[in-house]
Amino acid sequence: QHRARLVISCPDRPGIVAAVTSFLYEQGANIVESSQYSTDPEGGTFFLRIEFDTPMMATRKANIEKAFAPIAQTFQMNWRFRLHNDLQKLAIFVSKEEHCLLELLWEWQAGELLADIAVVISNHEYMRESVESIGIPYYFIPVTKEKKAEAEGKQLALLNEYKVDTIVLARYMQILSPEFVAQFPAKIINIHHSFLPAFVGARPYERAYERGVKLIGATSHYVTDDLDEGPIIEQDVARVDHRYHPEDLKRIGRIIEKTVLARALKWHLEDRVIIYQNKTIVFN
Amino acid sequence: QHRARLVISCPDRPGIVAAVTSFLYEQGANIVESSQYSTDPEGGTFFLRIEFDTPMMATRKANIEKAFAPIAQTFQMNWRFRLHNDLQKLAIFVSKEEHCLLELLWEWQAGELLADIAVVISNHEYMRESVESIGIPYYFIPVTKEKKAEAEGKQLALLNEYKVDTIVLARYMQILSPEFVAQFPAKIINIHHSFLPAFVGARPYERAYERGVKLIGATSHYVTDDLDEGPIIEQDVARVDHRYHPEDLKRIGRIIEKTVLARALKWHLEDRVIIYQNKTIVFN
Amino acid sequence: QHRARLVISCPDRPGIVAAVTSFLYEQGANIVESSQYSTDPEGGTFFLRIEFDTPMMATRKANIEKAFAPIAQTFQMNWRFRLHNDLQKLAIFVSKEEHCLLELLWEWQAGELLADIAVVISNHEYMRESVESIGIPYYFIPVTKEKKAEAEGKQLALLNEYKVDTIVLARYMQILSPEFVAQFPAKIINIHHSFLPAFVGARPYERAYERGVKLIGATSHYVTDDLDEGPIIEQDVARVDHRYHPEDLKRIGRIIEKTVLARALKWHLEDRVIIYQNKTIVFN
Amino acid sequence: QHRARLVISCPDRPGIVAAVTSFLYEQGANIVESSQYSTDPEGGTFFLRIEFDTPMMATRKANIEKAFAPIAQTFQMNWRFRLHNDLQKLAIFVSKEEHCLLELLWEWQAGELLADIAVVISNHEYMRESVESIGIPYYFIPVTKEKKAEAEGKQLALLNEYKVDTIVLARYMQILSPEFVAQFPAKIINIHHSFLPAFVGARPYERAYERGVKLIGATSHYVTDDLDEGPIIEQDVARVDHRYHPEDLKRIGRIIEKTVLARALKWHLEDRVIIYQNKTIVFN
Repeated sequence: QHRARLVISCPDRPGIVAAVTSFLYEQGANIVESSQYSTDPEGGTFFLRIEFDTPMMATRKANIEKAFAPIAQTFQMNWRFRLHNDLQKLAIFVSKEEHCLLELLWEWQAGELLADIAVVISNHEYMRESVESIGIPYYFIPVTKEKKAEAEGKQLALLNEYKVDTIVLARYMQILSPEFVAQFPAKIINIHHSFLPAFVGARPYERAYERGVKLIGATSHYVTDDLDEGPIIEQDVARVDHRYHPEDLKRIGRIIEKTVLARALKWHLEDRVIIYQNKTIVFN
Repeated sequence: QHRARLVISCPDRPGIVAAVTSFLYEQGANIVESSQYSTDPEGGTFFLRIEFDTPMMATRKANIEKAFAPIAQTFQMNWRFRLHNDLQKLAIFVSKEEHCLLELLWEWQAGELLADIAVVISNHEYMRESVESIGIPYYFIPVTKEKKAEAEGKQLALLNEYKVDTIVLARYMQILSPEFVAQFPAKIINIHHSFLPAFVGARPYERAYERGVKLIGATSHYVTDDLDEGPIIEQDVARVDHRYHPEDLKRIGRIIEKTVLARALKWHLEDRVIIYQNKTIVFN
Repeated sequence: QHRARLVISCPDRPGIVAAVTSFLYEQGANIVESSQYSTDPEGGTFFLRIEFDTPMMATRKANIEKAFAPIAQTFQMNWRFRLHNDLQKLAIFVSKEEHCLLELLWEWQAGELLADIAVVISNHEYMRESVESIGIPYYFIPVTKEKKAEAEGKQLALLNEYKVDTIVLARYMQILSPEFVAQFPAKIINIHHSFLPAFVGARPYERAYERGVKLIGATSHYVTDDLDEGPIIEQDVARVDHRYHPEDLKRIGRIIEKTVLARALKWHLEDRVIIYQNKTIVFN
Repeated sequence: QHRARLVISCPDRPGIVAAVTSFLYEQGANIVESSQYSTDPEGGTFFLRIEFDTPMMATRKANIEKAFAPIAQTFQMNWRFRLHNDLQKLAIFVSKEEHCLLELLWEWQAGELLADIAVVISNHEYMRESVESIGIPYYFIPVTKEKKAEAEGKQLALLNEYKVDTIVLARYMQILSPEFVAQFPAKIINIHHSFLPAFVGARPYERAYERGVKLIGATSHYVTDDLDEGPIIEQDVARVDHRYHPEDLKRIGRIIEKTVLARALKWHLEDRVIIYQNKTIVFN
C-alpha cells in the first residue's frame, strides 16, 4: 500500500538525520520505524533505515527519488527507497536435507515471508513433489566435479530467466565458484551448520562431537569467496551433553538451522541487514 | 563531558523527528543514538530518545532548553534533556537477602552503574559493614506493623536529606504504603522473585515448586499501588526440573533476580525506560 | 528389536535398585539408560526408569513380567515393561491453528516421533487435505454448545475404534467435558499458549500484551478437570518487547508452542514422564 | 553427616549396576541419586556415579572400601568413595580481572561452594585485601618470562604446603608450563573467555568483535598441555549485536565467565565430571 523504506549509508557528520527526516516530512511521509548506527561519530560511517507511510507512494516513488538525489549527493550517500510491496524474487538452492526448505515454504504459505519464491534449484530430484505441489518451479541440475561449470551455467541462466534478487542456500551442499559468487555480491545467504567461526568447513557436527562441546549452533551469513567467512547475519545455539551422538546433534541442529536461516532471510528481505567491513549491522 | 540525551513523548503526527533533529543540528549536536516508537501512527503516542554530543553542553543546557521550548509546545511534548554526567541519586532499600544489593554495589564499584548511591536503608542491621566499608551511609530503620508510618516518616526524611531521585527495592520485604508510593511515581524499582504475573505476592518460589513449573523467573517493575502490578521493565527465567526443592529454586532465582534488577536499573538510569499505560517502552 | 524399558514407582526404601538390576542381569539384560528419583529417602516415593537391551525381548516379555511380579509385590510397585517398538496409538485433536499438527506430522514423517498416528479429529474441515495426503484418517466432528455431548460421543467412538492410547490436543480450542477427561487419566496432552500459571484460560496473548510482559511462553501439560491446572510436562519462553502487538506475540508463540508440545509428547511416548501429585518427574 | 558418593568407570558389560547396588544395599546404604552412561553397551566404557546415605559412613569408609575391592577387581573398575563432608582443598590463581574470583568467594561465603579455599595465588597484589579480609591466605608471586620456572617453583611449594586438590584458574593470564600441568592431571580448571573452539588463544573478545559474531561465550575446561584444547566441562553464551564494542563484549562476557566457571567448579567438586578421551561426562 503506502509503506516504503529508505536505507542509507554515508560518512558520518552532523545534520544527516535532520536533512532526511525534513525531506520525508515535506513529502508527507509519516515515519513508523527508524534505526540508525554510526561506527564512529568522528570520521565513521553512518547507517540509517527509515520505514514510513505516505499516500500514493507507489506512483510517486520515482519523483521522490529524483527529489532526494541532491540531498544524497550532499552527504555522499549510498541509498535506496523500496516499496513494502515490492517483493524480492528468491531462488532457493537445496540438496538432500529438506528441513530448511520446508521451513521457508511453510512460512511463505503462512504469509510470513515477504518474498516471491521464484524457483527452487537442486542437485537432487528428492524435493520436487513438495515444491511443485504448491506451484513453485523446481529444477534438477546435477553437479559433478567435472561438470561444475556447466551446472553453474544452467543455474545462472535460470537465475536470469526468473530475475532472481536473492539466492538462499538452504543446506545446499555444493561450493559455488568464485565466478558465480562474484555475480551476486551480498545477495547469497547461506546457513552453516555450526556456530562460526568454530567448525568452519565440512562435517561440523561430527567435529563438535569429537571436541565435546556443550552447545551446538548454526550460523546464517552472506556468501563470499572465503568459505564460511562471509558477514554473519544471525546465529543461535542449543544445549547438548555427553549423551548426544552426532546423529542427535544433527537432529537438534536442524531446528536451529531452519530457525536461524528464516530469521536472517526475513531481515534481509526487509532491508534490515547492512554489510560493513565483513560484518553486518542488523536493524531488528 | 559533552554528551546528553533528550527524551520526548507526544501525540504522534508527521514532522516530529524532522523538527527535533533539525533543532539539534542547529545547536551543533551530533546524534550518536536514536530510538523511537509510536503506539499508532494515526492518533497514537510517539516516543523518542536521542543521545547526542555537543561541545559545552553542560554550560549551554539551560539555553538549549529555552530554545527548544517553542518546538515542544508546538508538538505538545513531555520532554527532558539530561546530561550524561548528571548522575541520579539512588537509595537502596534492603532486608535480609543480600545478593541484589551486593550485585549493585559490585557493579557500582566497577564503574558500570552510572549513578550516585546516596544511601542504603534497611530494616535489619545485617548489611551495615559491607555498605559502610565502601563509604556509603547505612541506616537501620526497623519496621513493625504498628510503627510502619513512623518508619516511613524516617525513610522519607532520609530520602529528602539525600535528595534521592530513584529508590531501588533490592529484595526489601516490606510493603510500602500508598502514601509513600504516591510521592515517587515511576521512581521506585522493585525486583519480584517470580515471572509475573505468575505468583504475585508472597512465597513465589514455594508456590512455583507446588505448581511444578519447569522454568522460574524474576521480574523488575515500577512500584504502584497495586502489589506486583506495576509496569514491567525486565524479566528473565532459568530452567529447573523435578529434582529442585524450594531452597534450590531460591538459590537459582537469586542469580536471575540480581541480573534482572541490575539490567532494569541501568536502563532506568540511562532514561531508556518510558512508562505508558502501565507498560514500558524500553529503548535498549 | 531387543530394546525395552521398565518404569517403576513405589515407596522408597533400601534395596529397590539392587533388586531390580539384579533381576534384569539374571534375565540377560544390559542396561543402556537408567534414571531415578526419590521425593524423600525417608518415607517418600521412589521412581525408576530403566532402558535395556536383551535378546528376544519381544517373545520373552510375558515371561519376564511373570518373573518380575514377586519382586514388584515385595516393594509394592506400580510398574510396566514396554517394548521400544511397541508404538502408542495417537489421536490428534486440532481446530483451526495448524502449526502444532504440522510439526507433529513433519516429525513423524522424519521418523522422529515414535508413535502410530492413528487418527486426526477436528471441529473444522480445514486440515483434511494435509492429513489425508499422508495416509492418516481425518474426521470432522463439529462441536456446538448444544451438541457437545453428541460430539464427544462420536469422538469417543473413534478413539475406541482406533484403540487410541494417547490424545494430543494440538491447539484444539474446545474444552473437554469432565466425563470425557475422566476416561483418559494422564493420557491427554495439551499445549497451552502461555507460560502457566500466568494467563490461565482464554486469550493469553492478548492478556500478555495488556500486561506488558517481556517474555512470552507456552506450556504442555496433562489435561485434568481443572482448566490449565494439570501437571506441567514442559515449558519454554521467547523474548518480546514493546513493539510487539498481539499478532506478533501469536506468530512468535507458534514456534514455542509447537516445539514445547513436540518435546513433551516425545518424552511421554518414551515413558519418560511420571505424574506425582499434580507435578511431573521427567527423566530426559 | 552420613552421605557419600561412589564414582566408577570400567569396561561395560552386564551386571555392573546389579553388583554395585546389591553391595550398597548390603552395607545399609540408601541411594539418593544415581547417574550412569555407557559409551557403547558393546565393548564401550561404563560410568556410574551413586550418591547414598548410610549411617556412620565416615567411620566405616575404610571398611566399606575394603569390602568393595573384590567387586571392583572383577569388573576392572576405576573407583572412588568420597564423603560428602570431605571437602577438597582449592587454590585459586588470579591475575588482574577480579570478577571470577569474587564470584567464587561470594558463593563460598554463601555456603554454596562445597570446598575449602586454601589459598589464593596471584601475579599481582591487586586482590590481596578482598581475599585476606575473609581469612584466606594470599600470595603474590610475580611471573616474568625469565623467572617463570622460579615462580612455578614457588607456586608448587605453596600447593604442596596447603595440600591442594584442585587448582582454579580464575582468569589467571599466565600459561602454565607442561611440567607444572603434568603434576595436576584433571585437577586444573580454567575459564576461557570464548565459546571454544572458536577463538582459541589470546584476545578472544577482540577477535569476536572483528569476526562480527552475534553471540559471545565462555568455556570452562580442564587444563592440558594443549592450550585451550582440554576437556570442556561447561559453556554458555550471550547475545550481542553490531553496537557492541570490544569493551562491551568484555563486560557482558564477565557475567558468562563467572557463571560458567562457578557451575563447572561445583560439578567438579561434587565428582559429577568424568574425563573420557578429552571429553567430559557430566552427571548434573
